[in-house]
Amino acid sequence: MTSSSPVTAPAPDGPLTSVAVLGARGRMGVEVCRAVNEAEDLELVAMVEGSEWLFNVADGGAQVAVDFTRPESVMENIRFCIDQGIHCVVGTTGFDDEKIATIREWLAPKPDLGVLIAPNFGIGAVLLMKFAAEAARFFTSVEVVELHHPNKVDAPSGTATRTAQLISQARAAAGVAPAPDATQEGASLPGARGAVVDGVPVHAVRLAGLVAHEEVLLGTHGETLTLRHDSYDRSSFMPGVLLAVREIQRRPGLTIGIESLLGL
Amino acid sequence: MTSSSPVTAPAPDGPLTSVAVLGARGRMGVEVCRAVNEAEDLELVAMVEGSEWLFNVADGGAQVAVDFTRPESVMENIRFCIDQGIHCVVGTTGFDDEKIATIREWLAPKPDLGVLIAPNFGIGAVLLMKFAAEAARFFTSVEVVELHHPNKVDAPSGTATRTAQLISQARAAAGVAPAPDATQEGASLPGARGAVVDGVPVHAVRLAGLVAHEEVLLGTHGETLTLRHDSYDRSSFMPGVLLAVREIQRRPGLTIGIESLLGL
Amino acid sequence: MTSSSPVTAPAPDGPLTSVAVLGARGRMGVEVCRAVNEAEDLELVAMVEGSEWLFNVADGGAQVAVDFTRPESVMENIRFCIDQGIHCVVGTTGFDDEKIATIREWLAPKPDLGVLIAPNFGIGAVLLMKFAAEAARFFTSVEVVELHHPNKVDAPSGTATRTAQLISQARAAAGVAPAPDATQEGASLPGARGAVVDGVPVHAVRLAGLVAHEEVLLGTHGETLTLRHDSYDRSSFMPGVLLAVREIQRRPGLTIGIESLLGL
Amino acid sequence: MTSSSPVTAPAPDGPLTSVAVLGARGRMGVEVCRAVNEAEDLELVAMVEGSEWLFNVADGGAQVAVDFTRPESVMENIRFCIDQGIHCVVGTTGFDDEKIATIREWLAPKPDLGVLIAPNFGIGAVLLMKFAAEAARFFTSVEVVELHHPNKVDAPSGTATRTAQLISQARAAAGVAPAPDATQEGASLPGARGAVVDGVPVHAVRLAGLVAHEEVLLGTHGETLTLRHDSYDRSSFMPGVLLAVREIQRRPGLTIGIESLLGL
Repeated sequence: MTSSSPVTAPAPDGPLTSVAVLGARGRMGVEVCRAVNEAEDLELVAMVEGSEWLFNVADGGAQVAVDFTRPESVMENIRFCIDQGIHCVVGTTGFDDEKIATIREWLAPKPDLGVLIAPNFGIGAVLLMKFAAEAARFFTSVEVVELHHPNKVDAPSGTATRTAQLISQARAAAGVAPAPDATQEGASLPGARGAVVDGVPVHAVRLAGLVAHEEVLLGTHGETLTLRHDSYDRSSFMPGVLLAVREIQRRPGLTIGIESLLGL
Repeated sequence: MTSSSPVTAPAPDGPLTSVAVLGARGRMGVEVCRAVNEAEDLELVAMVEGSEWLFNVADGGAQVAVDFTRPESVMENIRFCIDQGIHCVVGTTGFDDEKIATIREWLAPKPDLGVLIAPNFGIGAVLLMKFAAEAARFFTSVEVVELHHPNKVDAPSGTATRTAQLISQARAAAGVAPAPDATQEGASLPGARGAVVDGVPVHAVRLAGLVAHEEVLLGTHGETLTLRHDSYDRSSFMPGVLLAVREIQRRPGLTIGIESLLGL
Repeated sequence: MTSSSPVTAPAPDGPLTSVAVLGARGRMGVEVCRAVNEAEDLELVAMVEGSEWLFNVADGGAQVAVDFTRPESVMENIRFCIDQGIHCVVGTTGFDDEKIATIREWLAPKPDLGVLIAPNFGIGAVLLMKFAAEAARFFTSVEVVELHHPNKVDAPSGTATRTAQLISQARAAAGVAPAPDATQEGASLPGARGAVVDGVPVHAVRLAGLVAHEEVLLGTHGETLTLRHDSYDRSSFMPGVLLAVREIQRRPGLTIGIESLLGL
Repeated sequence: MTSSSPVTAPAPDGPLTSVAVLGARGRMGVEVCRAVNEAEDLELVAMVEGSEWLFNVADGGAQVAVDFTRPESVMENIRFCIDQGIHCVVGTTGFDDEKIATIREWLAPKPDLGVLIAPNFGIGAVLLMKFAAEAARFFTSVEVVELHHPNKVDAPSGTATRTAQLISQARAAAGVAPAPDATQEGASLPGARGAVVDGVPVHAVRLAGLVAHEEVLLGTHGETLTLRHDSYDRSSFMPGVLLAVREIQRRPGLTIGIESLLGL
């Protein structure tokens, strides 16, 4: 029997998983509803927005709830779902150690129930970070270029900063020497957009027409390896959300990030 | 204590490893001699070419021999080194199952001795293949573009063909559906250079100025991941050769390929 | 006085140009209305769809009409506009020599009036074709890679085919020898998607997540030049449409394509 | 009759042009000698190095002399060639306005003789700069990324700085508004390698394995255009040198740069 990939090829003849979407009219929620509707192995049984009554979620028989709401409401939503025996996939931000600990407490008496909280559901971005960290110790030099639309407020991007940190940690753990750099001139000029993050240069390009792109360049004697992720629109997060919806039923307890779901 | 990376940051204060190079005047051998000379933790104690006497290798006290000779001489060289208790790193081609079995027999009574045979010492190329195979099941579509100088006789390249095979195997194992393709027109035109390898399109570009380059493109909803390897000259294989020289002393028995040395 | 670029920096203090959009509810028409609304130097005075009365266009005082309708209605629209003294910018397809000749006849008695018909309003794509044709004769090898979403029916794309034709013409005119290619093996395998167009290999990649992308690779001794155009959505045609709206008032007679408007 | 391209397809049946190389044992001179030898329409009649007697050049009957020597000797060489009626192609650096004026004086009485002085013979780099300057006014945003080996002392590179200046001039001449940039955070971090040159951000990547690469990114609504030049080794300058050798005989007087030879 062929085991199907959770991401791209769900078994079409198994039982449907019923899904509720909280924050269903938000930017991300709308996309989640559409993606669940289009997935043959999932059924959308509840769409909740704002003050609507959460009992819809339980009445609809949801097995998994997806939450893209707001920091001030997400804890209440998670509490309700755990009480009702509904698995949670959470993309809402704002979790600190205290909230994380609280969720673990709530989950303790429910050994079959799973909650996943992820800051980034983009499978491509997660893979890029993983590969960059793995490859970093084999190369003399590593630099990062991130490219975004010009309305972005922060530079470098959070994802690029995180990538640089992971690269730096991997190189430190392997005892790799700093990348060589003979640059002498130019120090007095105003620098280009970007930053050196834990020893890794991160260049930030802002260009009309672009969406969200990241490139990691690794070089050694006579060869380079380039890892590039291009995100064209919000729908790029949906495969990661659907992956989480499918997997959370088999992963009791609290899971942070989608990395472990990728089975790498 | 910091553990040093075997590839890029050898511990400078440990004892030197003495190295002999067989085929020292060949294209690759010249590069190996240069790379060993430049490595602070290695000492070049013998350079052997053609009919020169192999006892130089033993007399020089070589701990590791690197063989880039020819299929008709490599077995004799390996036999000699095993007899003398010298580890072997072999880049010469032409090994079949019978020869492999013979080497295993020779190694059986020498539990501390290691022989490594690798078809490709390019760390970047090996990483590219590994990452492509790992990522392949998370994406709807995968295609390969390989780009080489116009004097190359085969198309697609062996490395690209191997990459496509690994991608295809990974997708089959995960039960991923074939990539969608609505192409209807154009079938009657003469196709462009390249081939469909196990269901994966491999496009072959031949361009003056290029050396050896490979790109794996993976796409799903709203995002793509691109993995690219650029090899600029023969020296790009040296980090892999040095890695093998350093690691073979800790890896008794026969090792095929450098993948397992990368510790991924 | 600074002369402003017609594309990106219209003079903000000049008189507004009043614009009518025909086919205002079509895919492209909606984008045109939005773009005209957002342009500080343009005023949207009429939106016409289907059977609505064209006199709206004249009543609204339109100076320029933009037509993204259908081949069966566009000639009538152009006739009306010419009669009323309204300049036309036409993105509708389906013009043959006969229709072109007819429009020239209609324009003959109106020496101040301009009509522009363009198959492609994408400035980036037009520039890519121009640069590729200009550079082609200086390089030993030229190949084209076009990359699109997997729902595209034709391969290679019309734009890539046109690009290859222009490259081929430029090389023929300069007497450039065919690109070298030592490929011998692989001819018996099924080729990859793509075609050889007038001697120029065009590789066609189809990948989920992509939109419309084209890359021209040119190579000679020790160097390559790569020209790449990425189109992320339909709005990419709007700068070209607005350029045409602004320029057509100064360009009496019939203009085919936006190339001449770019002033290159 | 087919007119042949001066760069890639010299007429093979015309008379040979005899060439002398001054600085024949220098890094560039060696490459020039090799390139002249390999060109079917050129004949290498003299190789001069250091204190060797320049009369060799005249005795050998050279029609064109190529000078890659040193600033302190180049003026004497040019003077000698002009006196002998030999055309000059000069890649040596260090020319100021005074020296340029002197050469013009020397050329005045020789209406048929040509001297070409070029800071960069790379056709790809020259085309990249030309195309970037032409395209710059049609896009909302423009940024430059240059990538080099880590032994390079200056950052950004001279070519990238020159490219940014040309882009800035073209945008100023067209009255284009500055590129939008909402970046607020990150200003306090140490910037990444690079500089803002005349308003154009230039990012400088230094990576082991790389040689010399430059990328110009141009973006507007929904589309981007990317122009990239990759120089893999010194031989990349040879097509430009040979172009100059062939063309200088038809271009009396002083020519600065190879741009005008490209006939664009």
